[in-house]
Amino acid sequence: MTDILLRHDSEHITTLTLNRPQARNALSLGLMEALDAELAAIAADTAVKVVILAANGPAFCAGHDLREMRATPTRPAYEAVFALCSRLMQRIVSLPKPVIAQVHGIATAAGCQLVASADLAVAAETARFATPGVNIGLFCSTPMVALTRGIGRKAAMEMLLTGDMVPADRARELGLVNRVVPEAALRDATLALARQIAGKSPLTVAIGKEAFYRQAEMDLSAAYAYAAEVMTRNMLARDAEEGIDAFLGKRQPVWTGT
Amino acid sequence: MTDILLRHDSEHITTLTLNRPQARNALSLGLMEALDAELAAIAADTAVKVVILAANGPAFCAGHDLREMRATPTRPAYEAVFALCSRLMQRIVSLPKPVIAQVHGIATAAGCQLVASADLAVAAETARFATPGVNIGLFCSTPMVALTRGIGRKAAMEMLLTGDMVPADRARELGLVNRVVPEAALRDATLALARQIAGKSPLTVAIGKEAFYRQAEMDLSAAYAYAAEVMTRNMLARDAEEGIDAFLGKRQPVWTGT
Amino acid sequence: MTDILLRHDSEHITTLTLNRPQARNALSLGLMEALDAELAAIAADTAVKVVILAANGPAFCAGHDLREMRATPTRPAYEAVFALCSRLMQRIVSLPKPVIAQVHGIATAAGCQLVASADLAVAAETARFATPGVNIGLFCSTPMVALTRGIGRKAAMEMLLTGDMVPADRARELGLVNRVVPEAALRDATLALARQIAGKSPLTVAIGKEAFYRQAEMDLSAAYAYAAEVMTRNMLARDAEEGIDAFLGKRQPVWTGT
Repeated sequence: MTDILLRHDSEHITTLTLNRPQARNALSLGLMEALDAELAAIAADTAVKVVILAANGPAFCAGHDLREMRATPTRPAYEAVFALCSRLMQRIVSLPKPVIAQVHGIATAAGCQLVASADLAVAAETARFATPGVNIGLFCSTPMVALTRGIGRKAAMEMLLTGDMVPADRARELGLVNRVVPEAALRDATLALARQIAGKSPLTVAIGKEAFYRQAEMDLSAAYAYAAEVMTRNMLARDAEEGIDAFLGKRQPVWTGT
Repeated sequence: MTDILLRHDSEHITTLTLNRPQARNALSLGLMEALDAELAAIAADTAVKVVILAANGPAFCAGHDLREMRATPTRPAYEAVFALCSRLMQRIVSLPKPVIAQVHGIATAAGCQLVASADLAVAAETARFATPGVNIGLFCSTPMVALTRGIGRKAAMEMLLTGDMVPADRARELGLVNRVVPEAALRDATLALARQIAGKSPLTVAIGKEAFYRQAEMDLSAAYAYAAEVMTRNMLARDAEEGIDAFLGKRQPVWTGT
Repeated sequence: MTDILLRHDSEHITTLTLNRPQARNALSLGLMEALDAELAAIAADTAVKVVILAANGPAFCAGHDLREMRATPTRPAYEAVFALCSRLMQRIVSLPKPVIAQVHGIATAAGCQLVASADLAVAAETARFATPGVNIGLFCSTPMVALTRGIGRKAAMEMLLTGDMVPADRARELGLVNRVVPEAALRDATLALARQIAGKSPLTVAIGKEAFYRQAEMDLSAAYAYAAEVMTRNMLARDAEEGIDAFLGKRQPVWTGT
């Protein structure tokens, strides 16, 4: 794979690192394609239990690559950019492994969308978030899809209409990130969270993550009918039998992922 | 009724108390059936204006009865458990009287779902909440249905993927509970809230609670069309005439529940 | 227009001021019609970039005009009130310009709904919010439509079932308002926010506001398909070309609104 995206695997945790530091990790077509392809490969990789999205350089991600976009100012070219971006963000959501954003510096526009699309996010105290497309005449309409599903409406509207930076502590109050830590502790805090989740049954986690997003789009009655069937299937899996019997027997479970 | 569920009626407030303290009030089939049957009876009982869900012993509720579930490890048996649980939780939502959870100790898995399903919740400072199914190989997929409709996505995902305990103060920040009080004041604080609501017109409260959950599943235009019709019907009821005329005449209203 | 609603235009910002101070700006049929008509005119007025909803007197707005409503106690009359109110609130949402509520004093029932329906809200420290219809036998069912789309379920249910006043700081925590400022600074703070947004491309803002509410009612896949098309159209507009080229060229953009 190209060096605009780095991959590191350890302890069943895969860290994907955006590596266009001079461009503040702007999501060029190449970087989006690399990220999308790597996530597609990870989806089927049983060795991977948790994915961390990280970034090199002073910024997490500054959004789309505007210079590249303006170089081909045609409808088909623009359509291709937003279609690819939307596919990438939905791949994060549909990936059968948890994705944790590890955020330092700025996460703006599609960069903020990456954070909002991740299942969990850990931010450095110095991280800042914004959807500033309105400042350049291009409303952050696709980032808004992820943002409005994670934070309240008035706060989302304020970010979108003003383009203002939201500091990490406020982002946690709003629900955009889960945890805020000193920048020096960011990697360790993110890894600790990833390790905790990697210690669970990967089958159980995959069942749960899929059900999380599917039931969220159903009405209450349909959601319960669906979730009750999901739990029944989960109960019949070996990892649930093992987990419950280990719990009742006061011993550690041994997951087989089946 | 069986003594695994206690019922106490006073001042038009019914307190249902989970009473399997040695089992941390685990929701056995028997306890779920007793709770479901009692709520079905209360639905039609005009003497009851508010329901409080409380618990005896050190825990509020530790979720399903895992020992009982593993004793009949068949698909039909598992299906029956989750179907009953889902019916019970939806009965809380569709009950034409407000339900207040009065929470002390731990409320985990389906116990946390009871809190999330209640209309309101008052918690002791020492109460703690979790969806720890992931730790035993069984993702809290049905509790998630209630949880994700009450708190933000990233916070819900963190609870579901880590299984970590959430203290009462954080649960209030997240919106899982309304009020946090010292444990010694828990009963009085819950009763005070129940009495305040029991003083309203029960017809008005029933109209409003039903409309609350129904309009939440509609798009904006449909929700307004529906809610406008609900308000028109409400205006034509005697209690609205009485309430408004009492307000305009600066006197106390006398509710007839019609 | 009638003097129960005042209009002031300056710097492309239109301030509409409720002006029934003796009636605590109760939303009589006349006031709702005036507000609805004014917003309909503003929708097509290219000179207006941002709308501020303000109020004269000690209260922002105390909801419907109960005395007027009770004077014609018929189903057709009640239907007309709630249909007009629902149309007015949806016009705020569908208006192609941002609406900012500037709130002091009390905002109750349909007054609270105005705040919840606005895109943004700035409140004085002394402002208070409630949906107290339950106290007069008339559940705040239409205000609930706006309220439940902006704040969490348990908090909304508590407001609706108790009718209690929520102070400004708590309203901000809940997400009902964006900013809380000293009462003496309310006008300046609201104007500063309005000016900031009025400095953006009105075309971009209109595209974004429409997309905000439309995508919120779609499932994730449909929302992304829709938003990707919106961004493509936005990219092809002159203001996006100008904004991006100005950004890349480190100069100020000049918006044409096309």
